[in-house]
Amino acid sequence: MIELALQSLMLKMPQPTNTAIMVIGGAEDKVHGRDILRSFFVRAGGEDARIAIFPCASREPVVIGERYHTIFTEMGAKAIEVLNICDRAQCNDPILQEYVRNCTGIFMTGGDQLRLCAMLSDTPIMEIVRTRAQSGSVTLAGTSAGAAVMGHHMIAGGGSGESPNSSLVDMTLGLGIIPEVIVDQHFHNRNRMARLMSAVSAHPDLLGIGIDEDTCALFEGDGTLQVLGKGTVTIIDPGEMTYTNRAEVGLADPLCICNLRVHILSQGCRYDLNKRLSASCPQ
Amino acid sequence: MIELALQSLMLKMPQPTNTAIMVIGGAEDKVHGRDILRSFFVRAGGEDARIAIFPCASREPVVIGERYHTIFTEMGAKAIEVLNICDRAQCNDPILQEYVRNCTGIFMTGGDQLRLCAMLSDTPIMEIVRTRAQSGSVTLAGTSAGAAVMGHHMIAGGGSGESPNSSLVDMTLGLGIIPEVIVDQHFHNRNRMARLMSAVSAHPDLLGIGIDEDTCALFEGDGTLQVLGKGTVTIIDPGEMTYTNRAEVGLADPLCICNLRVHILSQGCRYDLNKRLSASCPQ
Repeated sequence: MIELALQSLMLKMPQPTNTAIMVIGGAEDKVHGRDILRSFFVRAGGEDARIAIFPCASREPVVIGERYHTIFTEMGAKAIEVLNICDRAQCNDPILQEYVRNCTGIFMTGGDQLRLCAMLSDTPIMEIVRTRAQSGSVTLAGTSAGAAVMGHHMIAGGGSGESPNSSLVDMTLGLGIIPEVIVDQHFHNRNRMARLMSAVSAHPDLLGIGIDEDTCALFEGDGTLQVLGKGTVTIIDPGEMTYTNRAEVGLADPLCICNLRVHILSQGCRYDLNKRLSASCPQ
Repeated sequence: MIELALQSLMLKMPQPTNTAIMVIGGAEDKVHGRDILRSFFVRAGGEDARIAIFPCASREPVVIGERYHTIFTEMGAKAIEVLNICDRAQCNDPILQEYVRNCTGIFMTGGDQLRLCAMLSDTPIMEIVRTRAQSGSVTLAGTSAGAAVMGHHMIAGGGSGESPNSSLVDMTLGLGIIPEVIVDQHFHNRNRMARLMSAVSAHPDLLGIGIDEDTCALFEGDGTLQVLGKGTVTIIDPGEMTYTNRAEVGLADPLCICNLRVHILSQGCRYDLNKRLSASCPQ
């Protein structure tokens, strides 16, 4: 009886030291070690996790929702709901809101970030997700499109194989969960350095975060970012940018961007978002 | 008679304010404005230029040599020789050496940088080219493979679409004309940022210079670099690199490279190689 009461109490308590916002670069291992997904599962509370899966970035939300449902079930999660929102009106549903308010882990799948934003932007459910993630009362993960939406400014699309230029990247508004970053995913895999540099040159107050496939930038509650996975997380810091010509040239003209600071971080590296330093490195 | 004597005297005088080393990212315009090739022609002395073309990076040296011969002839150059060196022994030929010693412009074509180095490295002719280019007594240009060879350390080949890692780039020795740089070409066009970053992480005393197609990094005698052409020149400066894991990880493992400084420069921008600052930008 005391044990049950304690468990009940624990469930209601925030877990600030364990929760995280996990921004995954897409194509995370779903078959073998599943390291990144397992980290999400653990951070969400392990076998006690109550997980909400948002598959709405995908055009096959039932299939992809089911896939993650199976994975987290196999890991031992007992409470998992796939919230297949395909109409913004569903975001007013008090039962869905209640589940999101009480879950311990939220997972946003890949697909199209514009579709995800179209379903969730400025809805009551998104407000619950954002507030809970920012206050550290839930572990939130997003992969691929689910990662792209994390910033206030979002990359909707773009190209590669060109000199940096303004038309190389299409910007729009994201879900604003980590407002101070612009996220790009499948990063080195799809050669997206030039497009992310083009993006940050327009927003020198933000930080560009490029995340490779099967790699995760894990934002801790203490203002640090930790790297998990097979690839790298690239930080493009325009905070000391001395000059850009972007206001003076045409959209397709090559950009001049002077004095970016760049960090390539691999598994186990940490980055201090407040000091803007690679915290795990000798300074 | 006096005019002839003066001309003869002029021809023997170095022209330190006009000469340059022009490092071209490949695919320079050969048909329309020909801006970069025309800059080379002018820097080499215009109609008074005596040009030496080294086509030996190419497997079709006669064809490519002829192509540039035609271009510079059309511009008005009267003395042009294609030095089709296909055997290192030719580099001992005193007639070829004499031509290279007295020419005002040297142009190295594209092809395979390994082939170019195999023909020219450590030969008497190369020694003349290097010494004259470094002392500013000739204008030297190299495009694509002819650009890649400029550094002491040279990128022989590599890949893209991967997290930075040591095996993403094959390094060997170049011709050492600008020893303090590692040149990469077709840069953003072929998405080579990750390979150049991988390369500079092994040589933090050097500067990575990535040059886009139809773009030229023009090294002036005063220690500045100027950008000409349609794309960008990317400077990767590892001088303040605080950490890399490259000594501790396997060749294919993702690299951690902390604190690179990056400048993207477009037409008209200048960079001070001694101060390592974008000289044309407000600091």
